[in-house]
Amino acid sequence: MGQKKTFVTLEQIKEINKNYPTPFYIYDEKGIRDNAEKLQKAFSWNKGYREYFAVKATPNPYILNILKDYGCGADCSSMTELMMAYALDYKPEEIMFSSNDTPAEEFAYANEIGATINLDDFTHIDYLDKVLDGKFPETISCRYNPGGYFKLGTSIMDNPGDAKYGMTHEQIIEAFKILKAKGVKKFGIHAFLASNTVSNEYYPTLAKIMFELAVELRDKTGADIKFVNLSGGIGIPYRPDQEANDIAVIGEGVHRAYDEVLGRAGMGDVSIYTELGRFMLAPYGALVTKAIHEKHTYKEYIGVDACAVNLMRPAMYGAYHHITVAGKENEKCDHMYDVTGSLCENNDKFAIDRELPKIDMGDYLIIHDAGAHGFAMGYNYNGKLKSSELLLKENGEVKMIRRAETPKDYFATFDFSDILSKLDL
Amino acid sequence: MGQKKTFVTLEQIKEINKNYPTPFYIYDEKGIRDNAEKLQKAFSWNKGYREYFAVKATPNPYILNILKDYGCGADCSSMTELMMAYALDYKPEEIMFSSNDTPAEEFAYANEIGATINLDDFTHIDYLDKVLDGKFPETISCRYNPGGYFKLGTSIMDNPGDAKYGMTHEQIIEAFKILKAKGVKKFGIHAFLASNTVSNEYYPTLAKIMFELAVELRDKTGADIKFVNLSGGIGIPYRPDQEANDIAVIGEGVHRAYDEVLGRAGMGDVSIYTELGRFMLAPYGALVTKAIHEKHTYKEYIGVDACAVNLMRPAMYGAYHHITVAGKENEKCDHMYDVTGSLCENNDKFAIDRELPKIDMGDYLIIHDAGAHGFAMGYNYNGKLKSSELLLKENGEVKMIRRAETPKDYFATFDFSDILSKLDL
Repeated sequence: MGQKKTFVTLEQIKEINKNYPTPFYIYDEKGIRDNAEKLQKAFSWNKGYREYFAVKATPNPYILNILKDYGCGADCSSMTELMMAYALDYKPEEIMFSSNDTPAEEFAYANEIGATINLDDFTHIDYLDKVLDGKFPETISCRYNPGGYFKLGTSIMDNPGDAKYGMTHEQIIEAFKILKAKGVKKFGIHAFLASNTVSNEYYPTLAKIMFELAVELRDKTGADIKFVNLSGGIGIPYRPDQEANDIAVIGEGVHRAYDEVLGRAGMGDVSIYTELGRFMLAPYGALVTKAIHEKHTYKEYIGVDACAVNLMRPAMYGAYHHITVAGKENEKCDHMYDVTGSLCENNDKFAIDRELPKIDMGDYLIIHDAGAHGFAMGYNYNGKLKSSELLLKENGEVKMIRRAETPKDYFATFDFSDILSKLDL
Repeated sequence: MGQKKTFVTLEQIKEINKNYPTPFYIYDEKGIRDNAEKLQKAFSWNKGYREYFAVKATPNPYILNILKDYGCGADCSSMTELMMAYALDYKPEEIMFSSNDTPAEEFAYANEIGATINLDDFTHIDYLDKVLDGKFPETISCRYNPGGYFKLGTSIMDNPGDAKYGMTHEQIIEAFKILKAKGVKKFGIHAFLASNTVSNEYYPTLAKIMFELAVELRDKTGADIKFVNLSGGIGIPYRPDQEANDIAVIGEGVHRAYDEVLGRAGMGDVSIYTELGRFMLAPYGALVTKAIHEKHTYKEYIGVDACAVNLMRPAMYGAYHHITVAGKENEKCDHMYDVTGSLCENNDKFAIDRELPKIDMGDYLIIHDAGAHGFAMGYNYNGKLKSSELLLKENGEVKMIRRAETPKDYFATFDFSDILSKLDL
């Protein structure tokens, strides 16, 4: 197995732990900034390019404010995410509302704050018509699902035909015609065909499909297509032996497809949008937890003070997250452990049969690549509380960017009654 | 497919929906009470019998108070669950603390409120010794894991040897010796070998193993064994074609094993404890949601206003939950749908290729058997908010037993700063 670098040292963790109990999330400001800059550079050939950060990946306003420095907008999927974008003073054109199975009030609020609405389905046209009382916004985006399987070379990346998202080819053409008739002036298209791809080919391949669709839509409906939203799907290498995507190569691949298809069709002013979450944040967030128990039964277990409440991906997807024992980066991985959390759920294991250095009680474990869909997917099963989120600033200072939950938070939805009054929360 | 009865009618739902928006959880007080009574009766042959309700299944104080009427105690797995038991004035002997990978402060608090501590691991003896400064409580329970596979007849029920819970045979004997030397006077044993069994044989088979262990422990260590805790594992039939457990038959099966093993060994005063959650609550809670979208692409989709945030079991485990379209109980199931929530997660589907009656927009869908590990496993992914919980009382009245979350709850952990002050929460 290869190595995976950590962005925080044992000495820093010890210092942080004086003020913040484990487990905690820590984010690497420098890593986030450097990566955002690389992304901007990779797409700088496109004048209107904008990354709309997928808020759902890391819904923290402090993180959003860092990304704002690089011109990133916000890709919102719900009411609270739209509210967060509003609170942070995003300009209307910087807010994308990419949702599916959308409630009426969320469409209304998105429209109110000027977000670009990305329609997931053909039937949403009528729905939106009712919600907005016939007054469609100037700009609308539609989500496309080509069906079938999405292939890169000979390998199937994903199965869009089995996914709940987007409109068929026939539907999106019809949708554009109807929306145009309803007064929409500017159009965008969007598609999400595969998740967490570790391949420089995904985006260029998807882009070509979308660019061809854009030309066809212009030709068949006369719509003024302002942007193509490539959505998410650019992943990260969770395993140390995987090679990372090269965003510069990806940007160039999209550029070539752009020139080939849109350039030739005289559509060289179309903006490229992206909605990356994992790529923007996953490697730059870690869950830091302490070894509190060792158990020797039919296997060797290390019990830590974090659990699936803090990071659910291993339990839900069997996802691999690399683990570094802080301060033991260079020791031999000659012990085999299951690293477990405390839930009464046998799937609450951060690692199964993982080769690690000998772990002593009190050791800090750094769980890598937890910066996206990590804290965000936290729950309170078994009544466990969610941790704080901390930012390791470029100058080495540590700033709390979310406080840990308390029992009062956990019991908040009983505050209409005195049934728990004995707790004096 | 057979039928599954609902405990709430379309008329009732319409009435409730005037005061409470969908989605909401509703619990059936009568069902909970009748079932609890049956359980008590099934084990009434055992003088010391007590069900410790697994709070993690449905951590709602109003539900706990109903079960208290039947002598049920509380099986707690964490600090907040212990706090809830304390707030509801459970007597010390009515609180069981069955946890694993336990933090020091939770052991300390459990001891403080007099809960019975159930030690998951051999190394926890030393750990507890330090936490309690050598002052062990009078009563302690130890958790057993026999390893290998757990079989009923020829079928493997589960794989305890791969589970993180409990002590080996050798360890539990040694543990009893040490604990006795440290002054512990009364002992219990506990094991959890299989989850959600739909078989009248599971508990009797487990009981026999545990009773034999109890005799052996008495003989080898001289420990005074006061109880055998059969833990959870009694399941419910999620699918309409499954036959439900018969708790009376299960109680009789355990009784037979008790007489055979403990009776013969002169241990006829040992109490039986159970820690049921699913069996106590799952069938008596439903998630009620409204159809808000229909989508016709490569499949037929019904979009509802609930999502995996409200009920995660289908997304996490691919679990089957039966669905009834309220008011269409007797219509033909001649449509095939995927029933989807709104998360940007393709696994956010309550049903895949499910045969249901034709669903119209505005129809109420009753998602069955959500009363345990339903609301409790809710998260806030995509910034979605959790619903209210309602109790359908025996007299037909409806009482709110948990309010729905608001954006203020969602953003609570940013209340240390003014970063979201524009929202004026």
